[in-house]
Amino acid sequence: MNYPNKINKEYHKTINYANRGMDLEAIINEANEYYLEKDIALIYKKPTPIGVVKVNYDNNKQTIEKAYFATQSTLDYNGLYKGKYIEFDAKNTESRTSFPLSNVHAHQIKHIRNVIRHGGIVFLIIRINGLIYLLNGPDFISYIDENTRKSIPYEYIKQNGYELEYNYNKGLDYLKYVNVIGGFINEKN
Amino acid sequence: MNYPNKINKEYHKTINYANRGMDLEAIINEANEYYLEKDIALIYKKPTPIGVVKVNYDNNKQTIEKAYFATQSTLDYNGLYKGKYIEFDAKNTESRTSFPLSNVHAHQIKHIRNVIRHGGIVFLIIRINGLIYLLNGPDFISYIDENTRKSIPYEYIKQNGYELEYNYNKGLDYLKYVNVIGGFINEKN
Repeated sequence: MNYPNKINKEYHKTINYANRGMDLEAIINEANEYYLEKDIALIYKKPTPIGVVKVNYDNNKQTIEKAYFATQSTLDYNGLYKGKYIEFDAKNTESRTSFPLSNVHAHQIKHIRNVIRHGGIVFLIIRINGLIYLLNGPDFISYIDENTRKSIPYEYIKQNGYELEYNYNKGLDYLKYVNVIGGFINEKN
Repeated sequence: MNYPNKINKEYHKTINYANRGMDLEAIINEANEYYLEKDIALIYKKPTPIGVVKVNYDNNKQTIEKAYFATQSTLDYNGLYKGKYIEFDAKNTESRTSFPLSNVHAHQIKHIRNVIRHGGIVFLIIRINGLIYLLNGPDFISYIDENTRKSIPYEYIKQNGYELEYNYNKGLDYLKYVNVIGGFINEKN
């Protein structure tokens, strides 16, 4: 799959302080439920993997009595939109100046490269400075390949990402920019 | 997405009794690891969803102390192959004459319809009578829509499915028939 050339983008200067305390995962889950309900896209959060240590089988019922949370080797969300495979992860950072790459595990970076190579749409949704951006997988990988810094400067995200509007009533419509990075439409609508 | 017309198929008469005790999930996981290693496809089993009841946060370490296994509302495996979204589930049946539809939850059936409508490749891998078949999603749905029985006769699976060869050394190559149902090749190779 060929990604379209980056289109010109205008940036909103607003900083939505109200979003500070929001739960990014809950907002994305809500968007996915909306897409599902409206039959726009099928996108699900993968369950958190756990390592089960001890199971009790009493009364023909399995109860997990000891387990730990494990790390996803892929990204948290994937699904199907307009016949295309899409996958992404949601990342919060408290830093105001850059997105620390320690937020993305090495096996996840490898997986992002794999998805790009196999023709899927892959991206990160990054919350930084109270704003939410969609950063396309190839732009994320380009930064890593062309820089030695351990974090992506906020300026790079602003320049190369797409700011997603969010408000409590309308929710978050991240597919608006998946249409752009996926080549479904070739300019910002 | 249009699925290709059903091709003529010959059936192997062999019944591989050696496969009886095999773990279908382990076989599929092994196939997926092979595809990943050879960079053929990116297909993962989704983690089993759990409902966490109690977590212990002692020593800054989260340990799950009570949880239960929940049901996946989608299918267990999904991923990306040749630029296409693919999703499937693996089902065992002890019955020799039919595949009981109670093996597939109502929300999974709805999900299969959704994936078809959104242009994904979706199927079941069914082990019955010691043999393994790939049954394409549209053929599975057709049976449900055109019949009132609560199980799919073995004959229907033999006629409409694709028998997958399996042996311990070569493993299971289910993508061979995904090439057929996905329209990547238009006849049995």
